[in-house]
Amino acid sequence: MGAFLDLFAGRPVSRPPFWFMRQAGRYMAEYREVRAKAGDFLNLCYSPEMATEVTLQPIRRFGMDAAIIFSDILVVPHALGSAVHFEKGEGPRVEPVKSGADIARLDEAKLPRHLAPVYEAIARTRAALPKETALIGFAGAPWTLACYMLEGRGKTDFAAARRAAYATPSLLAALIGVLSSAVVEHLCAQVEAGADALQLFDSWAGLVPASQREALITGPARAVIAEVKRRHPDVPIIAFPKGLGLDLAHYARSTGADGLSVDMQTDITALDVPCVLQGNLDPLLLAASREGTLQEARRLREKMTDRRYVFNLGHGIVPETPVEHVDALSALLRAEAS
Amino acid sequence: MGAFLDLFAGRPVSRPPFWFMRQAGRYMAEYREVRAKAGDFLNLCYSPEMATEVTLQPIRRFGMDAAIIFSDILVVPHALGSAVHFEKGEGPRVEPVKSGADIARLDEAKLPRHLAPVYEAIARTRAALPKETALIGFAGAPWTLACYMLEGRGKTDFAAARRAAYATPSLLAALIGVLSSAVVEHLCAQVEAGADALQLFDSWAGLVPASQREALITGPARAVIAEVKRRHPDVPIIAFPKGLGLDLAHYARSTGADGLSVDMQTDITALDVPCVLQGNLDPLLLAASREGTLQEARRLREKMTDRRYVFNLGHGIVPETPVEHVDALSALLRAEAS
Repeated sequence: MGAFLDLFAGRPVSRPPFWFMRQAGRYMAEYREVRAKAGDFLNLCYSPEMATEVTLQPIRRFGMDAAIIFSDILVVPHALGSAVHFEKGEGPRVEPVKSGADIARLDEAKLPRHLAPVYEAIARTRAALPKETALIGFAGAPWTLACYMLEGRGKTDFAAARRAAYATPSLLAALIGVLSSAVVEHLCAQVEAGADALQLFDSWAGLVPASQREALITGPARAVIAEVKRRHPDVPIIAFPKGLGLDLAHYARSTGADGLSVDMQTDITALDVPCVLQGNLDPLLLAASREGTLQEARRLREKMTDRRYVFNLGHGIVPETPVEHVDALSALLRAEAS
Repeated sequence: MGAFLDLFAGRPVSRPPFWFMRQAGRYMAEYREVRAKAGDFLNLCYSPEMATEVTLQPIRRFGMDAAIIFSDILVVPHALGSAVHFEKGEGPRVEPVKSGADIARLDEAKLPRHLAPVYEAIARTRAALPKETALIGFAGAPWTLACYMLEGRGKTDFAAARRAAYATPSLLAALIGVLSSAVVEHLCAQVEAGADALQLFDSWAGLVPASQREALITGPARAVIAEVKRRHPDVPIIAFPKGLGLDLAHYARSTGADGLSVDMQTDITALDVPCVLQGNLDPLLLAASREGTLQEARRLREKMTDRRYVFNLGHGIVPETPVEHVDALSALLRAEAS
């Protein structure tokens, strides 16, 4: 096996494995070419051929230790029957959930068939990838999906979702319940199609008040992870609850995640956790400075020498990143000696 | 003296003093009436008569232990010569700082005269306030002001400012330096006009990567606080670096702030700090539910029984808050028994 799965299995690795969040993306000309052909963004997610191609592009050029299937967290609400579309330059629009009736209409039975193209892309990608390159499947965590479904669109404060926690807590709890079950199904189906590892993205975890964190973030993650592990005990699960800062330590211990992805705002060396750590390099540094990136990458690898660590960014690669910066960083990270 | 200053002076208090961030604001009909007369938002900030009136309105109705002078953090860049205006419904616009020449044009000498109306409002408000009600002056912290000045407007990710930290670090450092000095002058002038305490708002502290926190957040706060304390050793200074989570403990110990305001995402009971704590109640709870607010307020007061604590919100009151909720919460907080 390759360095990525070796690390999670507790086998020795000669250097930290690496991959980058949003490594298939607009900063690559090859991606932009496929994206232009795809038309609607969701077409790209639901075309096994195109999704496979863009998933493989960064592996061919940069040789990461893991690929992550090209998809979107909003395919889960879409598969449950929510209307989802992507406005050009404005991000996602989701038909807002306003009542218990809206939640009752969400239908998990539709999920396997709706998401069959994603699973086919995973099978094709796994077949095409080098044996030593891991393939990561993923899903949005229930709270983060609920944010989009309650707000109806991408926002940065998601006040509608945060208000729902106070104004209609049982509605929110029901939605979290439906989504938790769907997320489990989607993650397990990805494993069954060929994914070697999973990542659970809770991008808006940091918005939740401390008093609601157990109900909305930690509890659902624990339940999702437990059920996926029951069915697939050997598949590593990385959680990425963005914005929790040093509270990540409590989250890691209480959810049973195998790995924890760490944003750039958190001091990764201060985290005392029993699992693999991942991430932390600022994607804006990668965009801004080749030399600064290499220097910081060496420093980060040095700091993490004695930890089980997957090199990654603290958030996704930004579109304006010069592709040469990713070339240089990848070359550094592929080299054996640290 | 009243409960607010007693608490900071280490004198016994019979209940936690309270005030609310953005207590003068659109949720009050009296405020909306003055706001409509003022025309431009900055007119309201620069009219001693109107600023005094809206500062006093919540004290008359709710009897908080502290008033905070009605003003805006952007009066400091404005006073330094930046063009600032407020777009209706879209928030602030600031002439973007792009070069060293733009920074060189910022002129601290203009500050006292430009901000004289703010100081006059403070003097009038202090004269009109009950003796036992403290008057709080405030300023934006250098990083948060730099966010607006580099971005040119309010944003929630402030990518331009975050990029500047990597792409033009010496430009950002120069800007932070100029702003630190101006913030000291503005805070001290407020004390000299009659402010009894000060609050330093670093609303966007949470965006800064851990590796830059000392340079952009903690270091400037330490310098500002030290210089204000040198000139006015007895005036309590509360810092509000929003979004730091449990890292607040390190910030508090290393800046020497007398008080720390805590957002709603942070578990306030987990903070081991040598200073007064303030805040933590979610303003969205206050907007959503009268009963829920009273219950949570009792719980919060109970949890903080053995701490030096100022009751407040974790962020400003939101405009849609029913004023009756603020009535009920204030009545609870004014009662002696906890």
